[in-house]
Amino acid sequence: MTDLLESFTPGLPEQAVAAAPPPARRVWRHARVATLADARGWGLIERGAIVTEDARIAWIGTEADLPALGKAAVEEHDLGGALLTPGLVDAHTHLVYGGHRAHEFELRLQGASYEDIARAGGGIRSTVAATRAASEDELFALASRRLRTLRDGGVTTVEIKSGYGLSFEDEARCLRVARRLGQTGVGVVTTSLAAHALPPEFEGRADDYIAAVCAWLPKWHSQGLVDAVDAFCERIAFSPAQVERVFETAKSLGLPVKLHAEQLSDSGGAELAARFKALSCDHIEFLSDAGVAAMRAAGTVAMLLPGAFHFLRETRLPPIAALREAGVAMAVSTDHNPGTSPTLSLPLMIHLACVDFRLTPEEAVRGATVNAARALGLADRGTLAAGQRADFALWDHEHPRELAYWFGHPACRGTVVGAT
Amino acid sequence: MTDLLESFTPGLPEQAVAAAPPPARRVWRHARVATLADARGWGLIERGAIVTEDARIAWIGTEADLPALGKAAVEEHDLGGALLTPGLVDAHTHLVYGGHRAHEFELRLQGASYEDIARAGGGIRSTVAATRAASEDELFALASRRLRTLRDGGVTTVEIKSGYGLSFEDEARCLRVARRLGQTGVGVVTTSLAAHALPPEFEGRADDYIAAVCAWLPKWHSQGLVDAVDAFCERIAFSPAQVERVFETAKSLGLPVKLHAEQLSDSGGAELAARFKALSCDHIEFLSDAGVAAMRAAGTVAMLLPGAFHFLRETRLPPIAALREAGVAMAVSTDHNPGTSPTLSLPLMIHLACVDFRLTPEEAVRGATVNAARALGLADRGTLAAGQRADFALWDHEHPRELAYWFGHPACRGTVVGAT
Ligand SMILES: [Zn+2]
Ligand SMILES: [Zn+2]
Repeated sequence: MTDLLESFTPGLPEQAVAAAPPPARRVWRHARVATLADARGWGLIERGAIVTEDARIAWIGTEADLPALGKAAVEEHDLGGALLTPGLVDAHTHLVYGGHRAHEFELRLQGASYEDIARAGGGIRSTVAATRAASEDELFALASRRLRTLRDGGVTTVEIKSGYGLSFEDEARCLRVARRLGQTGVGVVTTSLAAHALPPEFEGRADDYIAAVCAWLPKWHSQGLVDAVDAFCERIAFSPAQVERVFETAKSLGLPVKLHAEQLSDSGGAELAARFKALSCDHIEFLSDAGVAAMRAAGTVAMLLPGAFHFLRETRLPPIAALREAGVAMAVSTDHNPGTSPTLSLPLMIHLACVDFRLTPEEAVRGATVNAARALGLADRGTLAAGQRADFALWDHEHPRELAYWFGHPACRGTVVGAT
Repeated sequence: MTDLLESFTPGLPEQAVAAAPPPARRVWRHARVATLADARGWGLIERGAIVTEDARIAWIGTEADLPALGKAAVEEHDLGGALLTPGLVDAHTHLVYGGHRAHEFELRLQGASYEDIARAGGGIRSTVAATRAASEDELFALASRRLRTLRDGGVTTVEIKSGYGLSFEDEARCLRVARRLGQTGVGVVTTSLAAHALPPEFEGRADDYIAAVCAWLPKWHSQGLVDAVDAFCERIAFSPAQVERVFETAKSLGLPVKLHAEQLSDSGGAELAARFKALSCDHIEFLSDAGVAAMRAAGTVAMLLPGAFHFLRETRLPPIAALREAGVAMAVSTDHNPGTSPTLSLPLMIHLACVDFRLTPEEAVRGATVNAARALGLADRGTLAAGQRADFALWDHEHPRELAYWFGHPACRGTVVGAT
């Protein structure tokens, strides 16, 4: 994990701050803090305070124990008694795309079949066409608004996948947009998901497309565009053998992998991903016991995506009890995408993870903080402790369990990313 | 309906405006307008404009057809191409209460039984106790924040039920709070739901409590606190015979009724309510064919509450197809309450009505506008046409179907209530 940490620059304004000596010191006081710093429990600190130096936490504890700080270069913030948690981490999004699929959604509710919709130009191919047709600036403007909304809901780090370009240049364009988004005040981790769907020009030639992706990956990587590699392993997407070729390429580049696995059927994707020490297996509604065991052995995170489960009206639940018993870390993310999860609220996903997947509020909140950070290979966020990044979210709540209870309205009072 | 309209003052700043001659004229231009003014279709006007005089719409059409208006006393608003819809109407809320039930929610997810929770002081009685313990100003402050959040999601008229006081004075206090909320810029309609649950001091004496409610109602009414009367008809609440006594009292006072009916079982509540020409029957997951027919004949609105359905993980759907076929108007509301629907987002309810209840986006949006207004006996809002109230919501969308598609984030750019 430390290797990964050093291998990319998550687009945060750290360098700029670090360049200015002496360190910018800030005191954040009068908050109820949930640190999540221990393996269990909320880590609540009543009347808590945090001292930050530049983008890092230098000290955390109760206000009464606040160390004496020279008045010089100390900026004070009274948080008015708000609940303070680690900034949320959305570790699975498809944030960069053109168009949307509201019309398709409406057609389906009006009784149209999938064939009708395909004939009307719907489905993933409509998003690919709209993404290819949009300029890089247009894609940036659209994704930037979406990212702003995610941040309004408490998110301070977000993973962004490509996967709607599906050509060398269109995928590169989407990854460049993701990198640019990382300069806008939210931490961004990029993932190449070129192996998302078969583009029309490769119709009937899936192996050829996979070969192309394997040839493109080193070039995207050399341009500094790729932090991790993902694929969609499913009967309607790519086979385990095809995914394996993509993963071998990632491995040769030193890039970590993750996998959209067992969403609609059990194709053994989790075992495959675990062999490559995948950061996460995502969706996993049809995950088998063998898959759970493999993930446990590999330290792979179980990425739960209740937004897609809800939107698709799935009925098969991920094997939560087995994951819990095996001690596999569970993360919760939005899976924001126009086809199956058009949501921009990670707090709502925390709620859905409780109501639909029966996670406890603490499990769900850990899923959107510390375990989501782990699913990105990031050990420096998702908890609040000395040395961690100073990424916070402030809430109009008394207790963090309320993040899971109330639903549908943004109770986030604001976010702090890298202490700014 | 006109009778009802004249019988109460929905707490809007209309009088104040009307007192100032000449009429305040405003032009709202450069919007994509969805009027919902016809029985079917969105009523879309591209590049639409609205002229308001005081709190009413004087003219609506395309900008090109905008009538010549003298420059005097005309205020212009460029809406920047935003989507403009009728202000949303939330026609079923329990907005006034003390405390909340997040801890109970957490306990249940940790495996506690209903008995455990009751022993820990949970359930509706905990809300009654917290409501009784709170001062009127505290209740106002809490509900006011909730109302503000509803309005941030596009709501311009809200119904507020009592039902957590359950004594003469505590119910009156909650209704007074609701009336005060009507002076804060959102239209408020009050409903007495004293027949919500049996208060502890009447344990084992449900008939005595109903007799007390029937004696209290005329007094609350004479204080101008009651616009309508509701009851909870269910095995765990009150019997049809008990509800009938409450309804007879309402009838004698000239107050319209509505009913929490057939949520957990079919107790014939809908037929009872229809006999009293109820404005709405609410929940109705177990509504029978006879209930549908009775509602149709009485013109009673079917109030769908997908938030509670979701939160309680119900599996029995309201009979949507039968209601649709019978031509019973369907409304959609939040049912905001701390026990079974802690949501403050009506747009999310529109989404859930589509995904879980399979309403079309147009049906769901009508449910939260024109049909919700009808469920309150209000013919002057929920659509945009000359003569209607100037209550709008502005959205970051291109098309109103997007209200149903995106979920979990407030895409509302702002609201206008009574043209201000
Ligand atoms: Zn995905
Ligand atoms: Zn209710």
